[in-house]
Amino acid sequence: MSHEIKKSGRILRAPENFVDDKLAEEITTHGLNAERRGFLRKSFLAASAAMASGTALAQAAASSFDGDPNILNLPEHSTTLGKPVRTNPYGLPSKFESNLVRRESPGLTRVPQASVAFTPLQSLFGIITPSGLHFERHHQGWYDIDPSKHRFMINGMVKKPKVYTMDDLMRMPSVSRIHFLECGANTAMEWGNVAVPSVQYSHGMLSCSEFTGVPLSILLDECGFDKKNAKVVLAEGGDGSGMTRTIPIDRALDDVIVAWGMNGEMLRPENGYPLRLVAPGLQGVSWVKWLRRIEVGDKPYATKDEAVHYMDAMPDGTFRQYTSIQECKSVITTPSSGQVLLEKGFYNITGVAWSGRGKIKRVDVSVDGGRNWRTARLETPVLSKCLTRFNIDWVWDGSPVILQSRAIDETGYVQPKINELRAVRGSKSIYHNNAIQSWKVAESGEVSNVQVY
Amino acid sequence: MSHEIKKSGRILRAPENFVDDKLAEEITTHGLNAERRGFLRKSFLAASAAMASGTALAQAAASSFDGDPNILNLPEHSTTLGKPVRTNPYGLPSKFESNLVRRESPGLTRVPQASVAFTPLQSLFGIITPSGLHFERHHQGWYDIDPSKHRFMINGMVKKPKVYTMDDLMRMPSVSRIHFLECGANTAMEWGNVAVPSVQYSHGMLSCSEFTGVPLSILLDECGFDKKNAKVVLAEGGDGSGMTRTIPIDRALDDVIVAWGMNGEMLRPENGYPLRLVAPGLQGVSWVKWLRRIEVGDKPYATKDEAVHYMDAMPDGTFRQYTSIQECKSVITTPSSGQVLLEKGFYNITGVAWSGRGKIKRVDVSVDGGRNWRTARLETPVLSKCLTRFNIDWVWDGSPVILQSRAIDETGYVQPKINELRAVRGSKSIYHNNAIQSWKVAESGEVSNVQVY
Repeated sequence: MSHEIKKSGRILRAPENFVDDKLAEEITTHGLNAERRGFLRKSFLAASAAMASGTALAQAAASSFDGDPNILNLPEHSTTLGKPVRTNPYGLPSKFESNLVRRESPGLTRVPQASVAFTPLQSLFGIITPSGLHFERHHQGWYDIDPSKHRFMINGMVKKPKVYTMDDLMRMPSVSRIHFLECGANTAMEWGNVAVPSVQYSHGMLSCSEFTGVPLSILLDECGFDKKNAKVVLAEGGDGSGMTRTIPIDRALDDVIVAWGMNGEMLRPENGYPLRLVAPGLQGVSWVKWLRRIEVGDKPYATKDEAVHYMDAMPDGTFRQYTSIQECKSVITTPSSGQVLLEKGFYNITGVAWSGRGKIKRVDVSVDGGRNWRTARLETPVLSKCLTRFNIDWVWDGSPVILQSRAIDETGYVQPKINELRAVRGSKSIYHNNAIQSWKVAESGEVSNVQVY
Repeated sequence: MSHEIKKSGRILRAPENFVDDKLAEEITTHGLNAERRGFLRKSFLAASAAMASGTALAQAAASSFDGDPNILNLPEHSTTLGKPVRTNPYGLPSKFESNLVRRESPGLTRVPQASVAFTPLQSLFGIITPSGLHFERHHQGWYDIDPSKHRFMINGMVKKPKVYTMDDLMRMPSVSRIHFLECGANTAMEWGNVAVPSVQYSHGMLSCSEFTGVPLSILLDECGFDKKNAKVVLAEGGDGSGMTRTIPIDRALDDVIVAWGMNGEMLRPENGYPLRLVAPGLQGVSWVKWLRRIEVGDKPYATKDEAVHYMDAMPDGTFRQYTSIQECKSVITTPSSGQVLLEKGFYNITGVAWSGRGKIKRVDVSVDGGRNWRTARLETPVLSKCLTRFNIDWVWDGSPVILQSRAIDETGYVQPKINELRAVRGSKSIYHNNAIQSWKVAESGEVSNVQVY
């Protein structure tokens, strides 16, 4: 047994010329077993004054070994006193993860206040997006608004228009739900056959968080909205862009939340602190940030961001408006473009799937460009209008392959191929590209973004 | 309608002496309706060169008003260009939330490397704990270990002992699951009738995250563990304290994960980066951080942290060992000790419930010290060995009251009163206090920590 341990690694490795084979096996096999530790400590008491268990063992062993002493040296973190609790009262990622940040696509917009910073999907796990990596899409920059001064108004076709403070809202009945949030322009470049270099840039206007707030339906009831004639609400942000979006009343009364909480704490300033609309299943622009007003109306408002932007350019030259539901979609996040497989063998293919119409029912994965499909494992919980993480085993034989994922939601809708989508939608659009994504793995192991028809 | 708007708040408020009542109503009622905005812009074109919608409106309105100009002035964030995207490549909380941090109880331990920093439960929402606020409990400080140098070994009663790199592990089949993590000594002070000042200190060694990693069962299978004779595994940390814990083999093969991911990203250094054990339902000390080794054995190892610490002192002078499952428990987080209710009226009572034995089935709330109970709403999803958020409506009439919550898990176990728990366990214990917590609301609205028998 000790031979195999010796072959396979570095920690507590027992070299062949160890002075005492029996002891070497004791150490490697039984490690810090308390009974045997007593024995070892007696035998080697002189070897070390430090009696911290692991340390003592290693030093004891090292002192009996006349080869390279580093072989048995434990790393510094196993032999020293670490940093105190609360070194960071609000914790931060490891210094070794400093490359894992939101990234901006240079030149994508004219000013960085009306730009995008993408979520690094290629390095994330599960379904929760860390709030520090939640994508940003602003129309006139972001703000850190004093919550004690923030006000939220409901007016329009209501009996009693009201203005709420944050304190007012946070005393009300609240709900907490996990939902994805995707910009309507996510994966926009793929319409035009521009293969952006990584899944961070191709799909990174996508995040998923647990949101907490008061259901909009409760607030609308409290204000006595006109149940007979109300058809829509208008959500208005407090930012300089005056972001405004029309939302159908049925949707507003269903699962829309006036939210202050994101992943357990208050919203981050870039994500609308102290108040944003959570409109599950709808494109991100409808999740109005720095929310200051909801107006109840009887027809769509045709505001700038729905009359000029966020429309689907169709092949016949017309524009589709108010297509704000994010259809069923998925993407493989590892392996993905920009990553390199270092060798043949086993890999876990993983990715996320989501649908603005409900739960994900199934995700299929192909490693041959869509000819054959296998069904992936879905991680629990599978929630409505929420990212679903999928995983599937794969053994790479070293030949070039095309990796694809295809999601199916509970309505039976199947994520389309890019040519199927183009047949209906043309290629002039910017918005609502939910096509199957293809990653090519070359013989070298390099993964790149390709379009497969 | 305009009168009510005037009364109720500040935003877009239309004063009574507004030059044009009709226009005032237009602005307050219809706000940024695009059609009407066109009209307004024409009427007030001279008033403002900035045509950003909200800004233009407010400035236009303000210019026609001869009272206090501040009444109609929009806040700076509605009239200026904000900060660019990626001001923080890794985002941070608002400056107004700087008080929401982990806190250490001074004098709790002799050195801050072997201390606790508590999670501020009183200000959190939902079930996900932001990783920056995850509680800390170290035995010899924390480390930021280079993952490329970290190794993980499996040995003991296995056919093929193996050492894994992080790359090796992260290629393997992975799972993502949301679980709570509670220190066995959480709520320890309440055994001795010491009413600590807030739920952060009384219950804040509790967090809940989505963890991602490879099931330990897969690794044990790969190493060919001795299915006939194996009874336990020993988990060993790479820290200077040589943290080691025995875990029954059935549990290890069930839902234990060798994890690198927490809330979507790599573990934080304080929480075991790059690798920790996730042992759902077990006390925190078994979730060994900076995990470097699993040894398979045939009897409990009786290591320092199970033979000397983390034992339950019983009334008869004996000690219970290996009682590592965290029993069903709950606590109201708002209102809670240290908070103040500013006035009578409606409040949302909210808190969390959890059980190391499965799902939460029901949470009851009493506002009269346990005489009457009402069943709270559970937020979805309700997951096994996971925090469950509960909410319940409450109208405070201004009289003194005692608030309590009582959780019941899917096994039928009911969270005990403190006197029921003391009848069995005495009061010498430090560990495993899962009693019902009582908060007293005084006539002044001040909430304090009390014990109710």
